[in-house]
Amino acid sequence: MKASIVGITGYSGLELVRILTGHQKVELVSVHATKGLGTKLSDIYSYLKGVCDLEIQSFDSQKIMATADLVFFATPSGVAKDLAKDFIAADFPVIDISGDHRLPAAIYEKWYKKAAAEQASLDKFTYALAELTDVKGKKFIANPGCYATATELALLPLVQAEVIDVNNIIVDAKSGLTGAGKALSESSHFVNVHDNYVTYKLNCHQHIPEIVQELKRFDKNLEHIQFSSSLLPVNRGIMATCYVTLKRPLSNEAISKIYQDLYADKPFVRLQQNLPELHNVIGSNFCDIGFAYNPVTNVLTVISVIDNLVKGAAGQAVQNLNLMMGWDETEGFPMTPSYL
Amino acid sequence: MKASIVGITGYSGLELVRILTGHQKVELVSVHATKGLGTKLSDIYSYLKGVCDLEIQSFDSQKIMATADLVFFATPSGVAKDLAKDFIAADFPVIDISGDHRLPAAIYEKWYKKAAAEQASLDKFTYALAELTDVKGKKFIANPGCYATATELALLPLVQAEVIDVNNIIVDAKSGLTGAGKALSESSHFVNVHDNYVTYKLNCHQHIPEIVQELKRFDKNLEHIQFSSSLLPVNRGIMATCYVTLKRPLSNEAISKIYQDLYADKPFVRLQQNLPELHNVIGSNFCDIGFAYNPVTNVLTVISVIDNLVKGAAGQAVQNLNLMMGWDETEGFPMTPSYL
Amino acid sequence: MKASIVGITGYSGLELVRILTGHQKVELVSVHATKGLGTKLSDIYSYLKGVCDLEIQSFDSQKIMATADLVFFATPSGVAKDLAKDFIAADFPVIDISGDHRLPAAIYEKWYKKAAAEQASLDKFTYALAELTDVKGKKFIANPGCYATATELALLPLVQAEVIDVNNIIVDAKSGLTGAGKALSESSHFVNVHDNYVTYKLNCHQHIPEIVQELKRFDKNLEHIQFSSSLLPVNRGIMATCYVTLKRPLSNEAISKIYQDLYADKPFVRLQQNLPELHNVIGSNFCDIGFAYNPVTNVLTVISVIDNLVKGAAGQAVQNLNLMMGWDETEGFPMTPSYL
Amino acid sequence: MKASIVGITGYSGLELVRILTGHQKVELVSVHATKGLGTKLSDIYSYLKGVCDLEIQSFDSQKIMATADLVFFATPSGVAKDLAKDFIAADFPVIDISGDHRLPAAIYEKWYKKAAAEQASLDKFTYALAELTDVKGKKFIANPGCYATATELALLPLVQAEVIDVNNIIVDAKSGLTGAGKALSESSHFVNVHDNYVTYKLNCHQHIPEIVQELKRFDKNLEHIQFSSSLLPVNRGIMATCYVTLKRPLSNEAISKIYQDLYADKPFVRLQQNLPELHNVIGSNFCDIGFAYNPVTNVLTVISVIDNLVKGAAGQAVQNLNLMMGWDETEGFPMTPSYL
Repeated sequence: MKASIVGITGYSGLELVRILTGHQKVELVSVHATKGLGTKLSDIYSYLKGVCDLEIQSFDSQKIMATADLVFFATPSGVAKDLAKDFIAADFPVIDISGDHRLPAAIYEKWYKKAAAEQASLDKFTYALAELTDVKGKKFIANPGCYATATELALLPLVQAEVIDVNNIIVDAKSGLTGAGKALSESSHFVNVHDNYVTYKLNCHQHIPEIVQELKRFDKNLEHIQFSSSLLPVNRGIMATCYVTLKRPLSNEAISKIYQDLYADKPFVRLQQNLPELHNVIGSNFCDIGFAYNPVTNVLTVISVIDNLVKGAAGQAVQNLNLMMGWDETEGFPMTPSYL
Repeated sequence: MKASIVGITGYSGLELVRILTGHQKVELVSVHATKGLGTKLSDIYSYLKGVCDLEIQSFDSQKIMATADLVFFATPSGVAKDLAKDFIAADFPVIDISGDHRLPAAIYEKWYKKAAAEQASLDKFTYALAELTDVKGKKFIANPGCYATATELALLPLVQAEVIDVNNIIVDAKSGLTGAGKALSESSHFVNVHDNYVTYKLNCHQHIPEIVQELKRFDKNLEHIQFSSSLLPVNRGIMATCYVTLKRPLSNEAISKIYQDLYADKPFVRLQQNLPELHNVIGSNFCDIGFAYNPVTNVLTVISVIDNLVKGAAGQAVQNLNLMMGWDETEGFPMTPSYL
Repeated sequence: MKASIVGITGYSGLELVRILTGHQKVELVSVHATKGLGTKLSDIYSYLKGVCDLEIQSFDSQKIMATADLVFFATPSGVAKDLAKDFIAADFPVIDISGDHRLPAAIYEKWYKKAAAEQASLDKFTYALAELTDVKGKKFIANPGCYATATELALLPLVQAEVIDVNNIIVDAKSGLTGAGKALSESSHFVNVHDNYVTYKLNCHQHIPEIVQELKRFDKNLEHIQFSSSLLPVNRGIMATCYVTLKRPLSNEAISKIYQDLYADKPFVRLQQNLPELHNVIGSNFCDIGFAYNPVTNVLTVISVIDNLVKGAAGQAVQNLNLMMGWDETEGFPMTPSYL
Repeated sequence: MKASIVGITGYSGLELVRILTGHQKVELVSVHATKGLGTKLSDIYSYLKGVCDLEIQSFDSQKIMATADLVFFATPSGVAKDLAKDFIAADFPVIDISGDHRLPAAIYEKWYKKAAAEQASLDKFTYALAELTDVKGKKFIANPGCYATATELALLPLVQAEVIDVNNIIVDAKSGLTGAGKALSESSHFVNVHDNYVTYKLNCHQHIPEIVQELKRFDKNLEHIQFSSSLLPVNRGIMATCYVTLKRPLSNEAISKIYQDLYADKPFVRLQQNLPELHNVIGSNFCDIGFAYNPVTNVLTVISVIDNLVKGAAGQAVQNLNLMMGWDETEGFPMTPSYL
């Protein structure tokens, strides 16, 4: 199978290169961007020398369709909504890592402050949290957001099991800086990030409606979540610390069972005995989940961790590709986290 | 005024040296420890060369009382409860930075898993969150814990104003590694901390009862808080992210007023327009507070930040000393945070 | 004494604010920049709230001379050379932290790739490495560069003592990111710096001619140095690791004596028994120096460390001010490094 | 092929697990340590859950030889010298990542301050810098040290080409903390490492004799190197910055050719146009090399970077295994560095 990447110079695009260069069943045939055209990717990113020496090409949907079998969009929000149209028209497979095809138009425009994709396009796409969506044979995948992936995997089992007060959910989520993208900004200037911890987009992060939308599928009573996002002075990793109130006290075994029922056959989701930490998953496509119940406050704390660039972006995209194709879900992945 | 420090080789003791060496009205006359006796402090900590060349002495209460006018305890928990007795008997002023004199004996023993101080000792001490306690003329001060300081300063105004549901408080607190102390451990080994984020002592941190005790003074209905503590890969700084539910919606102005009413004349507490970040306060005795109200969820998020070694330990101890003596509260402090 | 700062929004300008707000003999009366005019400095930098609430003003030499007694330039290179002219004409004291008045015009233009200051201006300025220059009563001070300060303090004693081969000096210097300035760039983007170590401007750093010029004063035979500069993933601190070849073997005592002879009465230079590390000096105006001689290779390794924003910029500027005024050299400085 | 690891709980042992779990031609059949016996490796290191759930066993040479085809030693120095004897006696293949079989006994004892392996054992082992040693069919491999690997790959081409003054080599090397091992110590305590840069073992690092021994093979005139090692506040990565003096000036092309002649067919050594940085190689088995010649000083600066746990330890061990077996050198390696 042959694949192209549009939006190669962002972190998600580069991470796709890393994963696809190790994937036995996929050949990366072209990479596309708006800058650096005609230059070898490895001339700009010398770590890729000898590993991926493709030349950066301008975007050309016809050429991509002539060369590849599938295209990944790893573009900033607001780009794929236009560029994907030709592929949709031609029924050519697309996995969109950006947020452009995840939400209804009105909600997208409210939270992203940008024009949304056309309804006809949105209708084609399936939002695919890989563990909970049947994508086999699907052609247009809206890959979930990074915070959304960590939060949904932590909370969906509880919402589905109807054991928590769905309107008293508080999520304190933290991300490494690759989640903030490659664009230069004061908030990603080394000196401002290092030795610091900054909460941003409080109450207005664009992944909030995505999380609410997905949780709501399992319980219509859920109306909102309280969600905060902060920047950890690390490169990779997201932790979602979720505080929920139980409808009635549950034993640890009962809580474990709720997670195991849903994830027992999911190779990339691990229920851990201890509270997960970022090191557990870095470099891998795992989502690790752990919890602790406090009988004094009746609060269940659930912690999930992912590598935001892997399970939170490029990895889940490849996982979705594997599932679309009917391959083994883990095909192409180095399974052991780099840990340190 | 002459002061001695017992427990010089921990981070709080060293930070006391830093602050006291810049204090015009206090002379540091002796430093005490169990290791390194007879060695100059600056031979072990070369950054102190020429700044504090005192020799480390063994503990000797009589000698301290003969030389100094006040003693700081910067010892691990379980030490001051015994060593402070002679001073109490002699009515010689003590500021205890450790947790030994903050809680009733039964509660201390439950949370610290150690024998508590004698009741007679406990009766002498005043728990002194500097902004909310009148310590002028007091002789025995139990200096608040680091997490407790950040959390109490953030929440006390709201509890006192009776505007929040006091039994639905969630605090997600994060600390730099100096808060974990100088003792070597897996959890403070560089490789394990760097690029990581680890939640520890969930539901069992020893500052929980201290916070509950202090908040309860302002509203007896408060029974518990949900409190989590995590390690940020930085050296200094605590952020307490507090999620509270309002009894009824409040405007930003109304919320600001609640804080200003309490802190207007407190030089070390600043209500900030933006959400505070660690850089704001590092190296200083400030506690910065900011908030954001979410009308969708009715959750008010309050964020407070302190330097755990200054306002969370040595700095507040000196602030308490200033207040005990009737000096200006800011005496001896470099006021501008180091920021970077 | 009243002082103004031109170039307030760079790191050196902000560090000047930190130091001057704690200086008993200096009042900061105005701060000048090209952006943020009319805004309070503390509205942009909330850590300064209540500490320095001056409004940012546009540059106006007449107004500064009417209000202040001295002006600091903390501007990027190429700015002070023009803006300082009015002050020079009026014989109004200037301390220039930028590189504009340190080098002869031809050399400046070669290394900075910018037009140099006029010769008449250059003639007025004294390059002032505070420990080795008599600035009392001087009016125009060219404050040394950060790398230059660390390197010169490490090497000058050896060059002066004529004990090393002056044309076989290798300096491997490392700096934290505040040394790279506040301008956004790929090389200061958090993700690119964190977990990385990057050597830059190899053989072309603009501090090279400054170092050669100063060392040459003590031995005309010195023609060049091999100097490399790298970025450490920290905010503050410079280490200059200097490798020199001895003309003939020397005992540790003999080497120590060379340093002590020059620095015995210099409060901010400390010869340490152990190899210095960054923690030794952070937050302070100290330059710590240590060494180790290898009889097998006949190489003497000398290591010096400074806080690049303090001794390497704003701190040395204030030290020079103290010396100009005939005050105690340490006036206004918190002496104890923040260490952690 | 089946392999066992002795010394599983150190960083090199864990990194071997990471690499071997992705190697198609090798099955990891047992892991051995002195602690945690009977516990699943993944119960101690939860990141390995589902990836490597082997139980930790005590060391038993007979059992290993009955189960596996080859054993890796990833033990601290001083252990393999004894434990390897049974395997040597049985002519059972060993790859020793520790330093026990790299040096002649007298030199080992001088630099490691420990009893050396027996001469009979030492005679069996081949020191195998993978790029420069023919190990096909060999049974006993002494895997090079991390600093030694980076330094030798950078310098051997120049020494062999006889273009530099071999007795005026200065290497300023820096390593991340995983290079300092898992043992708790003041020097690896987070607070002491973070925001710091510390030079250690100056003139006495145990990799010095190993480097001299290997360089000397190519030029007997080489007698010593000046080598310094420092700790960078990162987890992974070594940079060796090498300063050498050219016998006569060389063009960049001529220098490039020297490297290309030796490394053109070596998949894991890359000559880069730009100066290498740690990010280039992290997570991979690459050694990237770059250089810059300074005609003013006649100094050639050569910079090499490796991931100390991969090319500097476990990766090179697997590379050596591949070469011993006649497999493709890159077999089993994810080739793309994790980069961020």
